[in-house]
Amino acid sequence: MNIESVKKLLKEVKNGNVSVDEGAEKLSDLPFKDLGYALIDNHREIRVGYPEVIYCEGKTVEQVKGIIEFMNTRDNNILATRAAREMYEAVKETCPNAYYNELARTITVRKNDMKLTDTYIAVVTAGTSDLPVAEEVAVTAEIFGNRVERISDVGVAGIHRLFSKLDLITGAKVVVAVAGMEGALASVIGGLVDKPVIAVPTSVGYGANFGGLSALLSMLNSCSSGTSVVNIDNGFGAGYLASMINKL
Amino acid sequence: MNIESVKKLLKEVKNGNVSVDEGAEKLSDLPFKDLGYALIDNHREIRVGYPEVIYCEGKTVEQVKGIIEFMNTRDNNILATRAAREMYEAVKETCPNAYYNELARTITVRKNDMKLTDTYIAVVTAGTSDLPVAEEVAVTAEIFGNRVERISDVGVAGIHRLFSKLDLITGAKVVVAVAGMEGALASVIGGLVDKPVIAVPTSVGYGANFGGLSALLSMLNSCSSGTSVVNIDNGFGAGYLASMINKL
Amino acid sequence: MNIESVKKLLKEVKNGNVSVDEGAEKLSDLPFKDLGYALIDNHREIRVGYPEVIYCEGKTVEQVKGIIEFMNTRDNNILATRAAREMYEAVKETCPNAYYNELARTITVRKNDMKLTDTYIAVVTAGTSDLPVAEEVAVTAEIFGNRVERISDVGVAGIHRLFSKLDLITGAKVVVAVAGMEGALASVIGGLVDKPVIAVPTSVGYGANFGGLSALLSMLNSCSSGTSVVNIDNGFGAGYLASMINKL
Amino acid sequence: MNIESVKKLLKEVKNGNVSVDEGAEKLSDLPFKDLGYALIDNHREIRVGYPEVIYCEGKTVEQVKGIIEFMNTRDNNILATRAAREMYEAVKETCPNAYYNELARTITVRKNDMKLTDTYIAVVTAGTSDLPVAEEVAVTAEIFGNRVERISDVGVAGIHRLFSKLDLITGAKVVVAVAGMEGALASVIGGLVDKPVIAVPTSVGYGANFGGLSALLSMLNSCSSGTSVVNIDNGFGAGYLASMINKL
Amino acid sequence: MNIESVKKLLKEVKNGNVSVDEGAEKLSDLPFKDLGYALIDNHREIRVGYPEVIYCEGKTVEQVKGIIEFMNTRDNNILATRAAREMYEAVKETCPNAYYNELARTITVRKNDMKLTDTYIAVVTAGTSDLPVAEEVAVTAEIFGNRVERISDVGVAGIHRLFSKLDLITGAKVVVAVAGMEGALASVIGGLVDKPVIAVPTSVGYGANFGGLSALLSMLNSCSSGTSVVNIDNGFGAGYLASMINKL
Amino acid sequence: MNIESVKKLLKEVKNGNVSVDEGAEKLSDLPFKDLGYALIDNHREIRVGYPEVIYCEGKTVEQVKGIIEFMNTRDNNILATRAAREMYEAVKETCPNAYYNELARTITVRKNDMKLTDTYIAVVTAGTSDLPVAEEVAVTAEIFGNRVERISDVGVAGIHRLFSKLDLITGAKVVVAVAGMEGALASVIGGLVDKPVIAVPTSVGYGANFGGLSALLSMLNSCSSGTSVVNIDNGFGAGYLASMINKL
Amino acid sequence: MNIESVKKLLKEVKNGNVSVDEGAEKLSDLPFKDLGYALIDNHREIRVGYPEVIYCEGKTVEQVKGIIEFMNTRDNNILATRAAREMYEAVKETCPNAYYNELARTITVRKNDMKLTDTYIAVVTAGTSDLPVAEEVAVTAEIFGNRVERISDVGVAGIHRLFSKLDLITGAKVVVAVAGMEGALASVIGGLVDKPVIAVPTSVGYGANFGGLSALLSMLNSCSSGTSVVNIDNGFGAGYLASMINKL
Amino acid sequence: MNIESVKKLLKEVKNGNVSVDEGAEKLSDLPFKDLGYALIDNHREIRVGYPEVIYCEGKTVEQVKGIIEFMNTRDNNILATRAAREMYEAVKETCPNAYYNELARTITVRKNDMKLTDTYIAVVTAGTSDLPVAEEVAVTAEIFGNRVERISDVGVAGIHRLFSKLDLITGAKVVVAVAGMEGALASVIGGLVDKPVIAVPTSVGYGANFGGLSALLSMLNSCSSGTSVVNIDNGFGAGYLASMINKL
Repeated sequence: MNIESVKKLLKEVKNGNVSVDEGAEKLSDLPFKDLGYALIDNHREIRVGYPEVIYCEGKTVEQVKGIIEFMNTRDNNILATRAAREMYEAVKETCPNAYYNELARTITVRKNDMKLTDTYIAVVTAGTSDLPVAEEVAVTAEIFGNRVERISDVGVAGIHRLFSKLDLITGAKVVVAVAGMEGALASVIGGLVDKPVIAVPTSVGYGANFGGLSALLSMLNSCSSGTSVVNIDNGFGAGYLASMINKL
Repeated sequence: MNIESVKKLLKEVKNGNVSVDEGAEKLSDLPFKDLGYALIDNHREIRVGYPEVIYCEGKTVEQVKGIIEFMNTRDNNILATRAAREMYEAVKETCPNAYYNELARTITVRKNDMKLTDTYIAVVTAGTSDLPVAEEVAVTAEIFGNRVERISDVGVAGIHRLFSKLDLITGAKVVVAVAGMEGALASVIGGLVDKPVIAVPTSVGYGANFGGLSALLSMLNSCSSGTSVVNIDNGFGAGYLASMINKL
Repeated sequence: MNIESVKKLLKEVKNGNVSVDEGAEKLSDLPFKDLGYALIDNHREIRVGYPEVIYCEGKTVEQVKGIIEFMNTRDNNILATRAAREMYEAVKETCPNAYYNELARTITVRKNDMKLTDTYIAVVTAGTSDLPVAEEVAVTAEIFGNRVERISDVGVAGIHRLFSKLDLITGAKVVVAVAGMEGALASVIGGLVDKPVIAVPTSVGYGANFGGLSALLSMLNSCSSGTSVVNIDNGFGAGYLASMINKL
Repeated sequence: MNIESVKKLLKEVKNGNVSVDEGAEKLSDLPFKDLGYALIDNHREIRVGYPEVIYCEGKTVEQVKGIIEFMNTRDNNILATRAAREMYEAVKETCPNAYYNELARTITVRKNDMKLTDTYIAVVTAGTSDLPVAEEVAVTAEIFGNRVERISDVGVAGIHRLFSKLDLITGAKVVVAVAGMEGALASVIGGLVDKPVIAVPTSVGYGANFGGLSALLSMLNSCSSGTSVVNIDNGFGAGYLASMINKL
Repeated sequence: MNIESVKKLLKEVKNGNVSVDEGAEKLSDLPFKDLGYALIDNHREIRVGYPEVIYCEGKTVEQVKGIIEFMNTRDNNILATRAAREMYEAVKETCPNAYYNELARTITVRKNDMKLTDTYIAVVTAGTSDLPVAEEVAVTAEIFGNRVERISDVGVAGIHRLFSKLDLITGAKVVVAVAGMEGALASVIGGLVDKPVIAVPTSVGYGANFGGLSALLSMLNSCSSGTSVVNIDNGFGAGYLASMINKL
Repeated sequence: MNIESVKKLLKEVKNGNVSVDEGAEKLSDLPFKDLGYALIDNHREIRVGYPEVIYCEGKTVEQVKGIIEFMNTRDNNILATRAAREMYEAVKETCPNAYYNELARTITVRKNDMKLTDTYIAVVTAGTSDLPVAEEVAVTAEIFGNRVERISDVGVAGIHRLFSKLDLITGAKVVVAVAGMEGALASVIGGLVDKPVIAVPTSVGYGANFGGLSALLSMLNSCSSGTSVVNIDNGFGAGYLASMINKL
Repeated sequence: MNIESVKKLLKEVKNGNVSVDEGAEKLSDLPFKDLGYALIDNHREIRVGYPEVIYCEGKTVEQVKGIIEFMNTRDNNILATRAAREMYEAVKETCPNAYYNELARTITVRKNDMKLTDTYIAVVTAGTSDLPVAEEVAVTAEIFGNRVERISDVGVAGIHRLFSKLDLITGAKVVVAVAGMEGALASVIGGLVDKPVIAVPTSVGYGANFGGLSALLSMLNSCSSGTSVVNIDNGFGAGYLASMINKL
Repeated sequence: MNIESVKKLLKEVKNGNVSVDEGAEKLSDLPFKDLGYALIDNHREIRVGYPEVIYCEGKTVEQVKGIIEFMNTRDNNILATRAAREMYEAVKETCPNAYYNELARTITVRKNDMKLTDTYIAVVTAGTSDLPVAEEVAVTAEIFGNRVERISDVGVAGIHRLFSKLDLITGAKVVVAVAGMEGALASVIGGLVDKPVIAVPTSVGYGANFGGLSALLSMLNSCSSGTSVVNIDNGFGAGYLASMINKL
C-alpha cells in the first residue's frame, strides 16, 4: 500500500532532493508503518477525545499520581481503573478536576467534551453485588464517548423485572450482561435480543462459585447464540469492546 | 420402642413357651430392628407396588437377565436403569412382559397396577439432547407410582416456550429441571415457581462444558432459592427423590 | 386460566363500562399475571408470617440498618443472614426487638407469632465446626414457621452417636445433613431414613478439602438415593428448601 | 409499542366486528408480542435469506434427513453443523442441491442468492489443525450473507507470516481468531488491529492442553483489549456473532 | 460371640434372678456392645496412657482452656493440636504442667509415664519448611507411647544426605515421609526400605504447588510399593496411624 | 557396618590370598551394600516364597509371555497384574500351571506352598462394581502369603450389612476398604475399628465422580483417624502394603 | 544493522544501476530482514543437515506421503513425528530410504551424513513405559546431529540402578529426564548433576495421574535447581531444545 | 573410573604403607565419591565466586540474619531471595556491605569481583507488573557471574515494542521470557529467535488467571520449539538455569 510513498522517496533520492543518509534513515522507519504499526500507534496514541487508560492495581499511590499528573499536561481525557480512594486523594492535589467513582473504583479526568454516540450500550446487571463491575463497564464506555443505559438488578431469580426493562435492552446496539453466581442472565438476554451480547462473569457468590468460575463456564456454554465472554470481573475489557462495536 | 416385644419374648422364655436357645436366636436378630433397621428393610425390602431397582452399568447381560428372572418370581414391579438393548433382548426371553424404553435406557416390568398419585411431578427439559436423562427421571417416578407431566425443549434460548407451559409447571407438587450446557433453566424455573426444584445437570454440551461440570456449578450457584442438585446425568436419583417429595 | 377475567374485561369494554383506553392499559398489565407472575409476586411479596430476607455479605452496616429499619414499618418477620455483630449493634438502635444469633450470624425480628408446623425438620451435623452452617439452616427454617430438631456432632467417626439419635431423625418429614471433611454423614443418613435428605457441604476441613469441594463431591456421588445437594455452606438455601418440603 | 393494535382490537370488539370469544383468543396470543417476543420470533423465524440452523451432533441420520427435507419445502437457506458425511449422503437423496463441506462438517442448502455484505469478516487461523473450526466459522458467516476472508496458518511460531497478511486483517470489520495450543494468536492480533476480535479456542494440542483449556484461559487473559471469547471449538457461535457485528 | 452372655441373662430371667423389666433394660443396652461398639468405646474412651486429643483450629481460647481444664481432672495424657500460643498461655493458668511445642503447635500434658515402644517410628523430612508438620507427627506418636527418631532435611536435592541416614531409617518399624514441593522423598524412601511408608504431603512450596496438591499427587502416584498417603499437612493423622502400625 | 568384611578382605589382600585386581573388583561392588543397597536387593530379589510381580498394562502379549516363561525357570511364585485374558492364553502354552483370575485380571503361578499368616487382612468392598479392584487386593495379598477375608457389598447405603460383618472386620490385623462413588465406607470403618485402614478409591461412579476423584478426596479428608490412602484403583499397592503391615 | 545494505541500494538507485521500481520492490522485502526475520528464516529454512520436521497427528496418510515425497526432492534430512505405521508404509513406496522407528513413532530420511557433536545428550527414563517418549527425544536429537546416550529404566523405585549409570549421566552436556507417575526422577537427577536438566512428564500412570498432570506438577515444583519442563509427552520439544543447548 | 585410586590404595595396604584400619576407613569414605557425590559436593560446596543462596520465605528475621552473618565469614558472594526489607535492615547491622534490591526482594553481598561472562542472558518482560520476577532472574544471573540485558515492557499488546529490541534479544546466548496474563510473549520470542528460551509464568493478572495457571499452561503449550518452563514466579530457578546454559 505504501509502495507509492516508497517510490516517491526513492525518486527524491535519485533527484538528490534527499541525501542517501536521510533516505536510509527514513526508510528504516517505514517498516513499522508498512506493517500496519500505524494502527497500533492509533490504537495507543492519544487522539482528541480518546482517553488515556491506567490500570492501577499493583501500582503505588505515587506512581498513579505521577502518571496522571504527566498525562494531564496533554489534551486527552484520562481513565484510571482499579483505583483506591487514596490514589484519588493524591491525584486531586495536582489535578483538581479529577473525579472518583467510588463504586467503579475509577478516576476520570474530562479535558474535552466528546459528542456522545446516538446509539447506546445497555449495561445489564443481575444483582446489586455485580454493580461495581457493571459501573466499570459503564464508566469505561462513557469516557470513550458512548451513551450508556444502566439496567440493574434484573437477575433471573425474579425474571419479571427483566421483562419490564426489555424495550430498553432491545433498543441498544450492543448489550453487556454482568452476572455472578450461575450467570444465567447472559443466556436469558441472549435468547431475547438479536444484538451482540458481551457477557462479564463476576466473582460474586460463595461456596462452589470458585471465584467466578461458575459464571464463566455458564456463559461460555450459553445455549444462546450471539454471546461472547470476557475475563472474570473485567469491566474495563467489556466496556472497551462494547465501545468498539457501538462505534462500528 | 420395641421394648414391648422384647418383654413379651422374655415372658415367653420365662413361661417356657420359648426355649433359651430359641430366645437367644430371636434376640440376636432384634438389634437390627431396635436400631431402626426396620426402616432400612422397609427401604430395601419389596412391599407391594415398590419396584425393585437394578443399576445395569458394569453388569453383564447374563447377570441382568438372571437378576430380573429371579425378581420376576415375586410380585413387585421391576426397574432396571442404564440398560443396553441387548440386555432387554435377553431379559425378554424369560420375562415376556418386560418393556424397554429406548430413550431412557430402562427395562420395566409391571406386575401390579399401582394407583397413581393425585399430585404430579413436572419433568422439564431444556433441549432435546437432555431428553434421555429426563426420560429416566420420568420412568423412575412413574414406576414408583407418581403421575408425571413431561415438558420438553423449553430452554432459555427461547424463553417464550417456557412461559407457554408455565401453568403446567406451577401446578406440580415438585419440579425436576433437566439441563446441560449452562444449566440456566433451573434458575429461571426456581425464580418462577414456589415448589421444590430438583436440578439435574446433564453432560450435554461441548468445549468448556467439561462433562457436565458447567451445568453442575451453575445449578449449585443458582440465585433462586428452593433448588437443590443431584449428580450429573443422575435421572434415577432425581426421579426417586421427586417421588419421595411428591408422596409426602 | 385467566381467560375468564379477560372475557369479563372485554364484555365491560363492549358494554362501555370500561373505555378502550382503560381496557388497553389493563390488558397491558395482564400478561404478567397470565404468565404466572402472581406466583413470583407471592414468592417475593410479603404475606403475613413470611419473613423478609436480607443477605448481608457485601452490604455496609448502614445499608443493612436502613433496610431493616424500613422493613420494620411493616408487619412481617425479618431475617438477615451473614450478618456481622456490628450490623446487629447498628440495627438494634432503631429496632430494639431485633435478635442476633452469634453462631448462625443471623439477625431476626419477630413481628407476629407464626403457628409452627406439626411436622418437623431434622438438622443433623457431623462435627462442632459445622454448627454455624447448621444453625443458619435452623434459624431460617424456624422463622419460616417450621418446627426444627437439632441433632449435633453425630459424624461417622463415632457412628454409635448417630444411632442413638436415629428415632429423632427418622421422625422428621425432611432431614438436612450438614457436614464438611469427607461429608459421609449424608450418605449414611440417606441409607438409614426414607425421607428426603438435603445435604449441605461445609468448607470445614483442611488440606485436600479444597474449600468444601471434597464434601460437595462426596454428597453429589452419594450411593444413597433420596439425597440432593445445595451449595457449600449454603445454610439459608437448605433451610428455605426444607421449609418448602416440610409444608407440602 | 403494540398498544395501538390492542386498541384497534378492542374497538373491533366494541363494534361487534370481533366477538368476545374471538377477541379473548387473540389477546391470549398478544402477551408474547407485548413482551418483545416478536424479537425472539424474528430471531428464530425464517425470514428471506436467513438460514435455518440444525446442530447435528446427537441426532440420527434419519432425523437430520427428515428435518432438512421438511425445511427444504420453504424458501430459506439451510445450515447443518457438526454433520457426518453419511448424514449428507442421506440428505442428498431427497435434497440434491445440498452441499457438504468436508472440512467444516457442514451441510448447506442455498435456496436464494443473498447479497453479500460490503464489509467483510476476517477468519484467521494459527495452524492447519485449526482449519476445521475456522471453516465452520466461515461457512456460518457466509450463509448468513457475509463476505469472508480466510487467512490461514499465520500462528505466532512464524510471526512474519502474520505480518504479510496484516492489511487483509486490519481491513475487516470484525476479526475471528481461531487458535489451539497456547492461543497466543488472539492476543497478537488484538494488539495489532482496532476492530473487535472474537477469539475461538480450539482443542488442538496435546499434553497439558486439557482439551482446549489452555487456549481458552490464554484468550480470556489476553492483555489486548477488544477481545472476547466463545466456547472451545465453537465455530458456529463465533460465525453467528461475527455476522451480527458485521451487519451493525 | 456375646451369644453366651445373652443365654446367661435369659437363664437368669427364666430362673427369676432377673426380672423381666430388668432383663429388657439390659438387653436394650446390648446391641451397642454386640455390634462392636465396645471397640468404638475403647477407641474413644480413656484408657491408661492413651491421650485425649483436642483439635484446636476453630475453637476459642476459652473453649480450649475449659476442655483441657476438665480433662486434667482425669489421669490421662492430653494432646491438643493446631494450638496457638495464646491458647497455651490460657491453659497454663489452671494447668501448670502443660507444655507447648512452638514448632508443632501442640499443647501436651503428661500425667503418667508411659513405657515407650522398643521399635521406633522414623519421621523423615525433606526440608526445613516441612518441620512443623513433621514435629506434629513426632509429638503425636510420642504421646501415644512410641519411640521416635527424627531425620530432617534429607530431601532429594542433595540425596547423599539421605543415604548417610539410611541405617536409621531402615531400622524403623514404620517410616513417615514428610515433604512438600514435588514430594519425591516418599518415592525415594519407598524404593530404599521394605517397611510401610506413610507419606505426608505438605503445603510447602509456591507457584504451581497449589497448596500441596503437587506433593499429594506425586505421593499418590509413587512408583514405589508400600506407600500410602494422608491428607495435606495432616501430621496428627500420620502420627496416629504410625503409632497404630508400630504397636502391632 | 560392613567394616568388618572390608577389613577381612584387606587382610586377604595383604596376605596375598586375594590379588590387588580381585580385591579392587570386589570392593567396587561393596558400595552398594554399604549404602544399604542390600535392602533394595532384599526388597527386589527373589527369596523363597516371594512372588515376582509384572505390571502388564502397556506390555504386549508376547512380552508378558516371555517374561513369565523366563521367571518360571526359577522357584518363586509369580504375579502378573492388569493382565488381559489373551495374555493368559499365551502364557498357558508354555506355563500350564498358570491361573487366571478373571475378576482381578491377574495371572498367578504358584511354585511353592507358602505357609499363610495366622493373622488376616480384611478386604471390604462397598459395592459389587468395586469387586475387581478388591479382588486385585486379595490376590496380591494371598500370593504374598497372607490369609485374606473378603467382605463384599457392605456399603453405607445399607449400613446394617456392614454391622453384620463387623466381627470379621474387627478381627483383622489390617483392613483394606475399597469404595467408589462417595467413598464413605472408609470413614465409617475407620470410626468402628482400631486397626490401620488402607483406603482404595475406585473409579466406579458417574457424573461428578471425575474418574475416582470424588472417592479419593473423601478418603483423604476422612474424619476417622488411622486411615491412609493409595492411588485410585490401585489394588496391587493396597495389597502389597497390607501384606507388609500384616507381617510386622 | 542492515542499514549498510540499504545505503548501498540507495546509492545504486541514485546511480541508476537499479531502477526506482526495482528498488521499491527490493525495499518492500527488506522490512522482514530488518526486523530480524532472517532469523526466523534461518530458523525455518532448510540449511544443509537440518531436518525438515512434520507433525503427523491430525494429518492423513496421503498428506504425510505427499509432504515427504516433496521434501525428498531436496537435500535435507527429514523427520516426521507421531507417525502411524501405515503412514510409513505409504511413504516407503516413493521414498525407499525412509526408516520407521516403531517405538518413537517417527519416520526419518537421512540424505546426508551430518557430523555428530562431540558432547552428548543423556536421555534418561524412569520406566519402560516411558520409552516411547524418550525415543522421540533421542531420534529428534540425533537427526539434528547430536550424539545421544540412552539410559533406561533407572527410576527411583530402585535408585541403585540410577547410581550405576551416574558417570554416563554426569558426562553429558545436557540431560533429558523422562518420567511419568510421580516424576521424581527429574528431581533426583537435578540434585546429582550440575548440567541443565530438561524434564519431560509423560502420561504414563493411572488413577490420580490425570493424564500426566501428576508428573508435570512434580517437575515444575522440583526442589532441585537447574531444571525446566516441557509439555506432557513432548519428546520432540525436549529433543529440539536439548539439541539447541548441546550445540551452544 | 576411581578403580585406579582403589588399586593404588590396595597396593599401599599390601606394602604396609597403609594399615588395614586406615585402609578400611579410607574405603568407607570412597563410596560417596565413587558414586559421583563429589559432583553433589561441587554442586553444593562453595567454590570461589559461587554465591551462597538462602531462600528467605518462611524463615524469621533472626534466622536470615544469623545465616548471612555466618556466611559472611567466608569468601563467597551471598544471595538471599524472597527477602523482606526488615530482614535486610537486620542483616545490615552485622554485614554493612549487604545490598537490598527492593524490586527483586533480594539481599546480595559481593565478596569478590567475579569476571562476567562474554555472552549475555536476555531477560525479557511482558509488562511492568512482571518486573519483580524478572529482576529476581537478573539478580540471580548476575551474582552467578553472568552479563545480563534487561528488556522490559515488550508484551504482545504492542508488538512493535518487541521488534525494536529484537537485535538485543537475538544477540543473547539464552533468553528468559517473563510474562503473566496469557503468557504469549514466550511463544512470540520462541518463534523469533533460535536460542533456548526459558519461560517464567507469573501470577500477574486477575479473573480466570488462577494464580498464574493461565500463563503456565500457555507456555507449556507453546507452538514454538526451543522453549521450556519453570514454576510460576520462580525467578531464581530461571536465573540459575540460564546461568548454567550461558556458561556451557
